[in-house]
Amino acid sequence: MASVKDYVQDLCKGAKSAARGIAGADSATKNRALLLMAENLTAAAGELKAANAEDIASARADGRNAAYIDRLTLTDKRIAEMVDGLRQVATLPDPVGELIGGWNRPNGLQIRKVRVPLGVILIIYESRPNVTADAASLCLKAGNACILRGGSDAVNSNMAIAKQLSAALESVGLDPKAVQVVGRTARSVVGEILKRNDMIDVVIPRGGESLIRRVAEQSTIPVVKHYKGVCHVYVDKRASLTMAQEICLNAKCQRPATCNAMETMLVHKDMARRFLPKMAKAFAKAGTTLYGCKAARTLVPGIKPAKSDAWTTEYLDLILNVRVVDSIEEAIEHIETYGSHHSDAIVTEDYEAAQKFLNEVDSAAVYVNASTRFTDGAQFGMGAEIGISTDKLHARGPMALPELTSYKFVVFGNGQLRT
Amino acid sequence: MASVKDYVQDLCKGAKSAARGIAGADSATKNRALLLMAENLTAAAGELKAANAEDIASARADGRNAAYIDRLTLTDKRIAEMVDGLRQVATLPDPVGELIGGWNRPNGLQIRKVRVPLGVILIIYESRPNVTADAASLCLKAGNACILRGGSDAVNSNMAIAKQLSAALESVGLDPKAVQVVGRTARSVVGEILKRNDMIDVVIPRGGESLIRRVAEQSTIPVVKHYKGVCHVYVDKRASLTMAQEICLNAKCQRPATCNAMETMLVHKDMARRFLPKMAKAFAKAGTTLYGCKAARTLVPGIKPAKSDAWTTEYLDLILNVRVVDSIEEAIEHIETYGSHHSDAIVTEDYEAAQKFLNEVDSAAVYVNASTRFTDGAQFGMGAEIGISTDKLHARGPMALPELTSYKFVVFGNGQLRT
Repeated sequence: MASVKDYVQDLCKGAKSAARGIAGADSATKNRALLLMAENLTAAAGELKAANAEDIASARADGRNAAYIDRLTLTDKRIAEMVDGLRQVATLPDPVGELIGGWNRPNGLQIRKVRVPLGVILIIYESRPNVTADAASLCLKAGNACILRGGSDAVNSNMAIAKQLSAALESVGLDPKAVQVVGRTARSVVGEILKRNDMIDVVIPRGGESLIRRVAEQSTIPVVKHYKGVCHVYVDKRASLTMAQEICLNAKCQRPATCNAMETMLVHKDMARRFLPKMAKAFAKAGTTLYGCKAARTLVPGIKPAKSDAWTTEYLDLILNVRVVDSIEEAIEHIETYGSHHSDAIVTEDYEAAQKFLNEVDSAAVYVNASTRFTDGAQFGMGAEIGISTDKLHARGPMALPELTSYKFVVFGNGQLRT
Repeated sequence: MASVKDYVQDLCKGAKSAARGIAGADSATKNRALLLMAENLTAAAGELKAANAEDIASARADGRNAAYIDRLTLTDKRIAEMVDGLRQVATLPDPVGELIGGWNRPNGLQIRKVRVPLGVILIIYESRPNVTADAASLCLKAGNACILRGGSDAVNSNMAIAKQLSAALESVGLDPKAVQVVGRTARSVVGEILKRNDMIDVVIPRGGESLIRRVAEQSTIPVVKHYKGVCHVYVDKRASLTMAQEICLNAKCQRPATCNAMETMLVHKDMARRFLPKMAKAFAKAGTTLYGCKAARTLVPGIKPAKSDAWTTEYLDLILNVRVVDSIEEAIEHIETYGSHHSDAIVTEDYEAAQKFLNEVDSAAVYVNASTRFTDGAQFGMGAEIGISTDKLHARGPMALPELTSYKFVVFGNGQLRT
C-alpha cells in the first residue's frame, strides 16, 4: 500500500489536473454530466444500498445509536432526493464566465472582471452519504474539481456514489478525477491533505463545531467556516403580539435541530408582562423547555434558571433561553456579546427600532418581522447551498454556486505601455 | 510592563470596541477624519522627521545598507505624498452600505445584500513608514478598525504617524483606537496577535515572500496573501513585431522592482528568428541581462544559460528569462507550471490565440496586447490599493476599498413563517 504522503499526492495531482479541464468545460457539457449522474445513481440504487448496508453493519458493530444509523442510511427515498438534487443543479445558471464588472480606462485599456472557478475544493463532512452527490454537483457546476472526505462510517456508501458520478463525467468526456472520495479513513490522511495548500484552493468543513475547529486549526488551506448558529429573536416594545408569538414559535419549533433556529428569545421589559405568560404557554404546548433570567422567571414561574453558559449554547433542540431586556440597546449588546453572528431577528412596528437593529447587529442575516429559519440558500432563492458561512471573508451566509467561484481581470489592449 | 498576552489583549479589545463605532460612522465623518489626518501630519512634519531620525540612527547602528535606509527615510516629499494619499482616499466613494444585490421572494420577503465593514484588520508590513498612513486610511474609509505592525526599525516613525491619525479620529468624535500601531517589536508579540482569530477578522501581510509565508503558517486568522509576481509576456507567432518589442521592454524595464514586472519572456518559434536578435539588442541597451533556453541562445549567443530555478524566480531586477516555445499550448503550460498566477500577457493579432490565452491562463490578471505593469489599483481605476492578492478566495488581484469589506443579508418581512 502506498504511503499516506503518496496517496494524498495522487489524490491532489488527479484533482489539480482535472480542475483545468472542468474549468474550461461549457455549461451544456457540465449539465449533461449532471443529468447522467442522476441516471447512473437511479440505475445503481441496488449497488448503493448494498454498499450502504456494509457501512450500517460496521456502524452497528461500533455501537452507534439509532439517530446516527438513521442519518447514515440510504433509503430509496433518499436516493431519489439525491437524484432530484442533481437534476436541480443542472437547471441552475452557470456562474462561470459571468461578467461581474467592466470599465474602460482613459488610455483605452478595457478591464473586465470575470467569474472563474476556484480550482480544487476539499469538502469535509460527517455521516450523511447524500452530501457526496450534493457537494460534488455544486462544485462541478461551478467548474471546480472536488475532493470529498465524508464520515469514516460512510466510506463504502460514498465510494459507491462517487463511482457513479465519475462514470458520468467520463461518459461526457470530462476527467473522472474531478470527483474523488478519500477512500482511506485514517485521520492522518486528513492531516496530510490539509497541508496541501499548493494543490487545494479552499476547504469547506460541514458538520459539528469540533470538526470545524479541528479543520481550521490544522489547515494551511484557506477555510470557509460555518461555526454554530446561536440565533436570537428580539421582541421589541412596539411589536405586534400575535406576530411576535408566531415568529418566535416558528423560529424555535419548526425544526429545532437546524443552525438557523432560535436559541435565545429577548423580550423588552414593557412587553414582557403581556407577552411572556402567553408565549410560555404556547411553548409548553409545543414541548419546549424554557430557561431564563430572573425577570422572566418572576413573570413565568415555570421557567427554569438559565445556566451560566446558556447564552452561548446552541441547543439544536426544543430548549430555549428567555431574557428580559431594558432596551433595544441591551438586546443588541446581548446579541453582539453572546451570539454567533448567524441569523437574528427583531419583531417591531417601530421604524427607528427596525433600522437600528438592522444596522447594528453584525450577523450574516438580520431580519425584521420574519423567522430566522429563512437563512438557507433555497429559501433565499439562491438555488442549492453548500453551507452557511459565519466567516466574513469571501462568503457570508448561505453559500451557493457563485460563492464557489473566484474572479480574474481580463484586460484588452492595443499596445498600451505604462509610463 | 504588561505581559505579551495582556498587551495583545488590550490592543485587540481596543480595536474590537472601536470597530463598532467606525462601522456605523457615516461617510462625511470618516472623510472629515481623513482630511484632519492630512492636516495633522502636515503640521507635525518636524515631529515625524525627529522620530524618523531615531529609527534611522538605530538602523545605521544595525549596519543596514543604503537601500534599506532610503526606504526607511521620511523626507518632506514623502510626508507630502502621505498627505496627498489621505486626501485622495477622502475623495473615493464609500463602499459601506452599497447594495450589491437585492430581490424579493414569492412569500413577500425582501432580501437585500449590503456591503458592511470586515471589522478589525491586521496589516503586517516592512520598513516603509508611509504604509502606516496609507493602510490606516483605507481601513478607516471602509469602516474598519486596524492594527498596524510595521517593521521593527520603523517603530518610532510609525508611532509618531499613528499619534496624528488617532488625534484626528478623536477630533471628529471617533474612537482613536480605530488606528493602533503595535509599539512592542518583539516577534513573540506578532505570534500572539496572529492567534487572535476571536478578535481580528483578517490579516494582510505586505512585503517579501518569507514574511508572507511566516504569517500564513502562524496565523489562525484568515490571511489574504500576496506571494510573488513571476509574470510572463508571450509573443505569439502572429504578434506585431513593434508592439511586442515595446510591450516586452515596458513590462521588464519600466520599473523592474515591482511584482507586476515581467520575469520570463516566451517567444513562439516561428517568431523567434525575426524577433529575438532585435529584442536582445534593445534589452542590452536597457542594461538587462538575459538568461535563456538552448534555442534562444542559438539565435542570440549573448544570452546566458538559464539556471535550473530560473523559471520560478522573481528577480525584481534588470534580469530576464527567455524561452522559445513550439506553440501557444506550450506557452500556457509553461505559465501554469512555473508562474505565480499574478499577471500574464499575450501579444498577438490572432483572435483565437487571444481567446485561448485569456481563457486558459489562470492568473489574477490576463492581458492581450498590453504591458503586465498595469496590474495595480490606481492603474485599474479602482482608487488606492492595499495590496495585490494572489489568493483566489475573497479578493484576487488589486485590492481596494470594496475588497476591505464583507456583506450581510438584510431581510424585510411582515410576519413570514417557514413551513
